[in-house]
Amino acid sequence: MSTLPIAVDAMGGDNAPGEIVAGAAQAAEELGVPVVLVGRPDDVGDTRGLELIEASEVIAMDADPANSVRTMKDSSLVRAAEAVRDGRASAMVSAGNTGATMASALLRMGRIKGVARPAIATPIPVPSGSPTVLLDAGANSECNAEWLVQFAQMGAVYARDRYGIERPKVALLSIGEEPTKGNPLVKETHKLLAEGSWVGSTGAEFVGNVEGRDLMTDAADVVVTDGFTGNVALKTLEGGLKAIIAALLEAFGSTPEAQQASAQLMPALLPLYATLDPENTGGAMLLGVDGVCIISHGSSSSVAMVNAIRVAHDMVAGDVVGHLRRAVRPDPA
Amino acid sequence: MSTLPIAVDAMGGDNAPGEIVAGAAQAAEELGVPVVLVGRPDDVGDTRGLELIEASEVIAMDADPANSVRTMKDSSLVRAAEAVRDGRASAMVSAGNTGATMASALLRMGRIKGVARPAIATPIPVPSGSPTVLLDAGANSECNAEWLVQFAQMGAVYARDRYGIERPKVALLSIGEEPTKGNPLVKETHKLLAEGSWVGSTGAEFVGNVEGRDLMTDAADVVVTDGFTGNVALKTLEGGLKAIIAALLEAFGSTPEAQQASAQLMPALLPLYATLDPENTGGAMLLGVDGVCIISHGSSSSVAMVNAIRVAHDMVAGDVVGHLRRAVRPDPA
Repeated sequence: MSTLPIAVDAMGGDNAPGEIVAGAAQAAEELGVPVVLVGRPDDVGDTRGLELIEASEVIAMDADPANSVRTMKDSSLVRAAEAVRDGRASAMVSAGNTGATMASALLRMGRIKGVARPAIATPIPVPSGSPTVLLDAGANSECNAEWLVQFAQMGAVYARDRYGIERPKVALLSIGEEPTKGNPLVKETHKLLAEGSWVGSTGAEFVGNVEGRDLMTDAADVVVTDGFTGNVALKTLEGGLKAIIAALLEAFGSTPEAQQASAQLMPALLPLYATLDPENTGGAMLLGVDGVCIISHGSSSSVAMVNAIRVAHDMVAGDVVGHLRRAVRPDPA
Repeated sequence: MSTLPIAVDAMGGDNAPGEIVAGAAQAAEELGVPVVLVGRPDDVGDTRGLELIEASEVIAMDADPANSVRTMKDSSLVRAAEAVRDGRASAMVSAGNTGATMASALLRMGRIKGVARPAIATPIPVPSGSPTVLLDAGANSECNAEWLVQFAQMGAVYARDRYGIERPKVALLSIGEEPTKGNPLVKETHKLLAEGSWVGSTGAEFVGNVEGRDLMTDAADVVVTDGFTGNVALKTLEGGLKAIIAALLEAFGSTPEAQQASAQLMPALLPLYATLDPENTGGAMLLGVDGVCIISHGSSSSVAMVNAIRVAHDMVAGDVVGHLRRAVRPDPA
């Protein structure tokens, strides 16, 4: 188990640096996980006893990822990724610009040998069980079938290391269960996944195509798709949950009677709310880079950061990168 | 306004023929809309006073659409589409096999002149306003940019005729607001839509890219995408809403106190439930075939059929097919 600290991008996210630093300090204290902040000393201010790796630049949430990472070599994101590369940190965590986080990790840590493209693995909450790991949730807007097979391998490793699923059920996202349904990419990928030689050390089982309606069920532990479709599905679900929760809260407050009744209901509703709250998922992981990189959502509070740091720590301790290395065969090309 | 009856596929859907016939009879009585059933006399039994076009075959919910329509010429779906083609009915409505419904309509009614590919337009509920029309929701798993531009034209006409929106906001589904975000199809389509000459008689306004999280908001009235992505988004949303509602109902029943409180809340929650209930959307419309074809969901009850028949009637009365004809320029190729 590593005693290296986890590098936290203190400048990333809508609530940076305040909530980020608060979450980092809380994680260090409550979880006993060593944490190092990365950012501008003047902005960070009180580090609450944490060490700080100085970085003079900040990549904005809406900045062009590739350009920013290329030109802002002293940014907190690039410095955090370098800390992992140089063995000064065991993992990086950021709630900042997702594209720039990916680019920093990819350019500074590099890819695991044999990985064609890293993918973002995002947990989709399932009210009745462990989350469904969806990947790619947005790293690669265009994919080929071979990459999707690697996503299946990496997703299976992640489902096992993150959620303790010994024999992960891996499915392909399509628009019908039959192997003949879908676009050409899906049909070709289905053939490769059904053939089965990709399973190797992952212990995975291919369960065929699933549809969008299966994401929040226990139909599969891992759902593989291209980054465009995955991102649309993820955002659609986020938007749907947000719309429902907003409409529910409005209904709860609509009359004095409703207010009173909903107050009585709260104890029963809180566990569901906790399951759905993105603050509690622990963030997404960029699978395929040569190190642990956790991407927390842009609106992360200190709670989200504590959870993301916990996941980063667990993934380092469980050697997910080593397991990914063994699962992914070097590209024969 | 047409006095021709609406042809209802009595054999289509999980609850056929019972709920279908009940809904058809209810629509005829309550809405004063003439309805003709299409199906097997022995299965339909009591037609509740409605006329019946006899059809000896039934295309199963899970049958291969193209094969079935080609070989089962005396099926209720093919006969319903023929009734529209032959001027014996003004529209067709089915809760049966979606692919076979599309194929029947396409092969028997034909396409509107100039339409490259018909598309399924599905209303996405928006708690605070009129639904967002999503198309293509699954008719074409592969699309090109020119087709998507036609979907924009047809979706805008539909949003106006169906929801009375004079100047429909049309958006393109992508994974970021910037025109540079997305896959190659989306980037090319964005250029064509931004150029603006497609607007013509539709009165539409292109508002750029939206993300999945915008579907249940008033960000756009019409959202255009390929049939693979659209179907994934639609099913993801359906699955998400279903999971939340199931989890809510479980929480509501979890303790005697919760049961009592939720009973008091029901008056406040029912309008939201009604907004989200697929029984109330009136079904999807296949835009681009030369006639009105309404596709109701497979689990349609009599209520869903009444609503679908009402929409079919309104679309015939409002001459949506004539408006589509004017909006879609003949393909210059």
